Amino acid sequence: MGRTPPHPQVSQFDLQQVLEALVDPVRRSIVTRLVTSGEDLKCGAFDMPVSKSTATHHFKVLREAGLIRQYYVGTSRMNSLRRTEMDEAFPGLLDVLTRAVSAPS
Amino acid sequence: MGRTPPHPQVSQFDLQQVLEALVDPVRRSIVTRLVTSGEDLKCGAFDMPVSKSTATHHFKVLREAGLIRQYYVGTSRMNSLRRTEMDEAFPGLLDVLTRAVSAPS
Repeated sequence: MGRTPPHPQVSQFDLQQVLEALVDPVRRSIVTRLVTSGEDLKCGAFDMPVSKSTATHHFKVLREAGLIRQYYVGTSRMNSLRRTEMDEAFPGLLDVLTRAVSAPS
Repeated sequence: MGRTPPHPQVSQFDLQQVLEALVDPVRRSIVTRLVTSGEDLKCGAFDMPVSKSTATHHFKVLREAGLIRQYYVGTSRMNSLRRTEMDEAFPGLLDVLTRAVSAPS
């Protein structure tokens, strides 16, 4: 699959890079959506207040930080949360940030 | 104490603001130092690779996000981690970030 973009291994995960990815509200909303949906979603399934090229950039930043895995199904680029690997590298981080985001008041 | 700078209440804590404070490595190192020392520290006690005015700015960002409380003892500005309040607002966040920072390898 020459179209599958590169992904970092867990040993390459970097807290600074992960925080820089998650400090952006739009990118955090993508991760929260993947956490709450519990399934892989194509890029078009996210309702984002940004242009398509900006959205593509956001997915790329998340992928390069190790937060999501991207792969193709036909012409759709799918996004999968790398939950197990992120929990291995930074236990609790995803829980904390998605709980804080989705907590009612 | 007219010299005591303003501090947000817990109800005013904002995850976005807290993440923007903690995404900076120098500011994260200040918080980690306070976590590991377990006591209040004056600004001069932190070994930071930045100018004094930049350091003052970093402390201000942390204070305005609710991460630290600042007060004077004589001419020294002291810094206290607002651990209880931060844990109340965002349970686990400080644990996750300081554990990740201080973890061996």
